[in-house]
Amino acid sequence: MTPVTEEPAGGGTPPRDLARLQRRLARFAAVRNWQPYHTPKNLVAALSVEASELVEIFQWLTPEESARVMDDPDTAHRVRDEVADVLAYLLQLCEVLGVDPLAALEEKIDRNERRFPPPEPS
Amino acid sequence: MTPVTEEPAGGGTPPRDLARLQRRLARFAAVRNWQPYHTPKNLVAALSVEASELVEIFQWLTPEESARVMDDPDTAHRVRDEVADVLAYLLQLCEVLGVDPLAALEEKIDRNERRFPPPEPS
Amino acid sequence: MTPVTEEPAGGGTPPRDLARLQRRLARFAAVRNWQPYHTPKNLVAALSVEASELVEIFQWLTPEESARVMDDPDTAHRVRDEVADVLAYLLQLCEVLGVDPLAALEEKIDRNERRFPPPEPS
Amino acid sequence: MTPVTEEPAGGGTPPRDLARLQRRLARFAAVRNWQPYHTPKNLVAALSVEASELVEIFQWLTPEESARVMDDPDTAHRVRDEVADVLAYLLQLCEVLGVDPLAALEEKIDRNERRFPPPEPS
Repeated sequence: MTPVTEEPAGGGTPPRDLARLQRRLARFAAVRNWQPYHTPKNLVAALSVEASELVEIFQWLTPEESARVMDDPDTAHRVRDEVADVLAYLLQLCEVLGVDPLAALEEKIDRNERRFPPPEPS
Repeated sequence: MTPVTEEPAGGGTPPRDLARLQRRLARFAAVRNWQPYHTPKNLVAALSVEASELVEIFQWLTPEESARVMDDPDTAHRVRDEVADVLAYLLQLCEVLGVDPLAALEEKIDRNERRFPPPEPS
Repeated sequence: MTPVTEEPAGGGTPPRDLARLQRRLARFAAVRNWQPYHTPKNLVAALSVEASELVEIFQWLTPEESARVMDDPDTAHRVRDEVADVLAYLLQLCEVLGVDPLAALEEKIDRNERRFPPPEPS
Repeated sequence: MTPVTEEPAGGGTPPRDLARLQRRLARFAAVRNWQPYHTPKNLVAALSVEASELVEIFQWLTPEESARVMDDPDTAHRVRDEVADVLAYLLQLCEVLGVDPLAALEEKIDRNERRFPPPEPS
């Protein structure tokens, strides 16, 4: 991932980071007056619907076929599109709830490191 | 979000960014020999299951109750935990498929800006 | 389940019951050689995808709007279509697993009657 | 659907059919004053959550392992329990929306027979 500075000194392409995309999504919804629809309850429903649209791509594939899914350009595009939708709703949910998704994930990995100790070297 | 440098010069807490967490998740799975389970097909199933665990928290709430869900510490913890799980499986899916989630989201927002033009000022 | 006769003696519409529809679905898949795709794992994925397509219809609606969803003929058709898809995959899953869905539900209601005793009359 | 008598004249086990279980579910909810929670929007969310609990059982299994899932009594019980939950919420949804699930499925199979004609005998 590209190193990030919030206000790039010399202009050009702005850095691509989670916080900036989260703000872009918030502005996008605000400008279109979509906030009344963006209750936490509705956003989790939308998130789960987008996750299921990812599942739909894979539902009849064998494990082996599922590993080659990016070889077909159309399917690859569809996968990226659904990944983007899941991430978009997750960030919007975090925005309305005041949750920091990266801090939440860091804590979760820390807990899982304790919960599932690595196997002993044999 | 905190500015990021990949190897912090002076030690201390490493920066928290998506790419670093993605690598932490990959190591976590590799050390435990979980990669054979992490087919794209299985990871999207796990992602959708975690998204549904978020839905479960909200399923009987009114829209108003859903907006106050972080007021209760136990529920707030549960929400952060499920947000972390969704993000973890999304990052692991992107890892095995070679998808850049931030680039995918940026492109999606660009497309949506063209697809849903902002309303005219009245 | 009520005994079924495939060709009712006196002609007329055959009875519409779950077991007959389950057999119709099984024949439908067999004739098209779809059984190799109908592993339990794939069928539960398909079931969850169809359930999410129901959620999609309701995701931005208020509780009040959701109660009037059958007033619009197009939406009503879509709802019936997704209800049918959920039931179809549930019956096909039960077929491949040898589960009797009505017996499972009867037992579950019995357990819930004990688990959630009715409130005392006040 | 087969005509039902609530109290079979001669005693014995009443017939087990979908309509009778649907009425049992409706009474169960009414006695506990749960109807205010049973908006269509909430019931589809609950349905999708239960479908995901089925997915959870299968998410890390190979196709072959998924076909043997009923061999383990504990897992078999869990599968039947989740099948019952999916069917329960589907019937409750149909109740509040006035949808006949068997008629909806019959029509859907009819449409699919036309949409996917059986292959020519070779």
